[in-house]
Amino acid sequence: MELINRFKAYIAEEKLYHPGDKVLLAVSGGVDSVVMTHLYKQAGIDCGIAHCNFQLRGAESARDETFVTALANELGLPLYSIRFDTETYAGDKRISIQVAARELRYAWLEETRQKHGYTFLATAHHMQDNVETVLMNFAKGTGIAGLHGILPKQQHLIRPLLFAQKEDLLALAAANGWGYVEDSSNLTVKYTRNFFRHKVIPVIQETYPAAVPQMAASIDRFREAEQLYTEAVSRHKKRLLFKQGENFKVPVLKLQKAIPLHTLAWEIFKEFGCSPAQLPQVIDLLQSEPGKLVETPTHRIIRDRVWLLITPLEAPEAPLIVIEKETGVVSVKGGTLKLKIRTSEGAPIPASPLMACLDLDTLQFPLLMRRWKQGDYFYPLGMRKKKKLSRFFIDQKLSLIQKENIWVLESAKRVVWIIGMRIDDRCKITSNTRNMLVLEWHPI
Amino acid sequence: MELINRFKAYIAEEKLYHPGDKVLLAVSGGVDSVVMTHLYKQAGIDCGIAHCNFQLRGAESARDETFVTALANELGLPLYSIRFDTETYAGDKRISIQVAARELRYAWLEETRQKHGYTFLATAHHMQDNVETVLMNFAKGTGIAGLHGILPKQQHLIRPLLFAQKEDLLALAAANGWGYVEDSSNLTVKYTRNFFRHKVIPVIQETYPAAVPQMAASIDRFREAEQLYTEAVSRHKKRLLFKQGENFKVPVLKLQKAIPLHTLAWEIFKEFGCSPAQLPQVIDLLQSEPGKLVETPTHRIIRDRVWLLITPLEAPEAPLIVIEKETGVVSVKGGTLKLKIRTSEGAPIPASPLMACLDLDTLQFPLLMRRWKQGDYFYPLGMRKKKKLSRFFIDQKLSLIQKENIWVLESAKRVVWIIGMRIDDRCKITSNTRNMLVLEWHPI
Repeated sequence: MELINRFKAYIAEEKLYHPGDKVLLAVSGGVDSVVMTHLYKQAGIDCGIAHCNFQLRGAESARDETFVTALANELGLPLYSIRFDTETYAGDKRISIQVAARELRYAWLEETRQKHGYTFLATAHHMQDNVETVLMNFAKGTGIAGLHGILPKQQHLIRPLLFAQKEDLLALAAANGWGYVEDSSNLTVKYTRNFFRHKVIPVIQETYPAAVPQMAASIDRFREAEQLYTEAVSRHKKRLLFKQGENFKVPVLKLQKAIPLHTLAWEIFKEFGCSPAQLPQVIDLLQSEPGKLVETPTHRIIRDRVWLLITPLEAPEAPLIVIEKETGVVSVKGGTLKLKIRTSEGAPIPASPLMACLDLDTLQFPLLMRRWKQGDYFYPLGMRKKKKLSRFFIDQKLSLIQKENIWVLESAKRVVWIIGMRIDDRCKITSNTRNMLVLEWHPI
Repeated sequence: MELINRFKAYIAEEKLYHPGDKVLLAVSGGVDSVVMTHLYKQAGIDCGIAHCNFQLRGAESARDETFVTALANELGLPLYSIRFDTETYAGDKRISIQVAARELRYAWLEETRQKHGYTFLATAHHMQDNVETVLMNFAKGTGIAGLHGILPKQQHLIRPLLFAQKEDLLALAAANGWGYVEDSSNLTVKYTRNFFRHKVIPVIQETYPAAVPQMAASIDRFREAEQLYTEAVSRHKKRLLFKQGENFKVPVLKLQKAIPLHTLAWEIFKEFGCSPAQLPQVIDLLQSEPGKLVETPTHRIIRDRVWLLITPLEAPEAPLIVIEKETGVVSVKGGTLKLKIRTSEGAPIPASPLMACLDLDTLQFPLLMRRWKQGDYFYPLGMRKKKKLSRFFIDQKLSLIQKENIWVLESAKRVVWIIGMRIDDRCKITSNTRNMLVLEWHPI
């Protein structure tokens, strides 16, 4: 089958497109993302191009930006591009250049997707990328979750080229005379990945020439196996983990008999800060005397007579901070919030969900900063329907612990920002905005 | 921890020994099996040595046999050894030397284990062997079952060294001055395995020096994940597959909605001869009109209005063959049975479960050859208690199809041989046997 038809079939099978959808394409200018762009264009799907210039490779970075701009013009597609001061960002946050670039990239791409009303953000990961990921996970040590590789769809993020091999993409570009740029450093790819790409997989292919598609087929099966695994784990958790007010409890006798013990104990206790290294200690509690305990960074797991009791390490703190002024700094457990006022002139799109810009006229002071609670709802940016926070957190796949640590900002009894995650649509910047409240969340 | 203590801990954890057990050690004379022998001796476990001479490497084969004989003498352990004419066997059966050696080895080892009352047969597979197996499976394409690697225990077969790395075994042998032989050809190891051992894994270790133990830890987790997977699959099968006389049926609507569809369909239909290549056709039946069908080598899968009906390809044949004479040939569906009489003088132990030697005085002619049926029982060789065949087949992990194809030999209303699998203990050769009936089963 021709690649364009395999592309359409894959999109249909994995439900990566429905009539009316708009897709924002992350395009570096390399062969993968260029071929993806042409395929979307050929398939007649409404799409736009987003390009990040990390300004890390001097003239080569500028060349890539110019190339992608020309590609967008040639195909008549909307273009969104940004230049990041990646080195400063990495220095400020004391993270590696790779991690910085990745953070900046995904935060900006997601903001751009939301702001301009795109249904999906598409990246050009292909079959080799996927196989590399799984082999690396396996070599580093992983559970079954490390075997599903790169998923075709995670919420709004899609990977429509996972069905294709690198050679297919190169051949199609050559056959059509599609130009692309070569990234001499391959910045967002770590050394280890390049090593697996150029050293490990070719050696495996000497024995098994079809190793890449065979491993990709295996990964598809692992993905389905993981669904069944997750189903079984959920069923066990229902009979092994009970909520009681602020605390949780696990019946000792039932957990002792649970099969397979290690995996089920891990699935239960990882939510409460337990590390793989601590797991054997927690399992030892099953045989120990009442009163013994294991302390994780967030919880105490205590051996009671017939239960393991799980309690948060600290009592919940005073949950309400009143913010009277429009500028200043508020420090709470877990981080610091900075507030300032700006006019909306030339306002940049926040480059990270840690930052929010709200239309000042939609807000009413004092603001309240508090923990989220059951029953809270908001209008997620880009949506016209309200959504319960509890539902939103499920969609975002937050763990119990992550949920417990969420702060929200409230104005006139409305949640206006789930801090560090998503603003309310009714407070967003519009063409009518005069002044905006700029909020920065600095987690510890 | 010292290796001997890790060995004891591993044996305890995986339940590879209980007081009173006797363990038969498969010893080639290489470092792995020699270290295993010393560890068993040091642990004070009652054990014996079994050695196969495949007579494929001339003087080297003889040297190995001499070495193992000396080792058994030195440690005061019982020795069982055999010489195979591997090349003739491979030629007669038209199989590769590797496959022939493997078949001869496991059949003889298992017979020896049973005949001399050993609880377990132990082989010296270690951590590297395990990691190689899983990497090879992954590269060839596999489902989750290909990830559990070499299991520490499968019925009577145990692998007590899976916890250890090759380097550990070499170091211990060196530290204790334990001699061993080197196998220049490494016969039972295929070329592909050697390639993974010497070419693929060392390259991975350049990036991840601890790749082998990390992969081994992953494999342990996959093994537990597979248990949960299997649990979920069983639950789905209960609601998706129904037996109706000779036939089975699957509800179309329920299967259409089953998640994940491909994996669940595979787990259901593979039992009925469906190949991976045929699976998409079977899944297409869910959308097709009544009357369409897919034919596997053994079954017809027919789209009915609300069911997929599964029926065996052939009507069950006349199920009873009367064997009047003590010598001759009987041909049935699935294979040919040859009978002859021998005196028990210098009788060899059958080298394969495809061969059986029964004490002629315990038999009563005519014999009957028939399919097994529910309610059948026998006394499995080596056991003093009777066992239902249905139970025996579960222990042997036979699939539905394999069970359907089983023949048994009956004498005076007793099952005396499950053909190709196991004889009845009451008919075995003893020191009192005068003449024996030698049976050879040649499956098609």
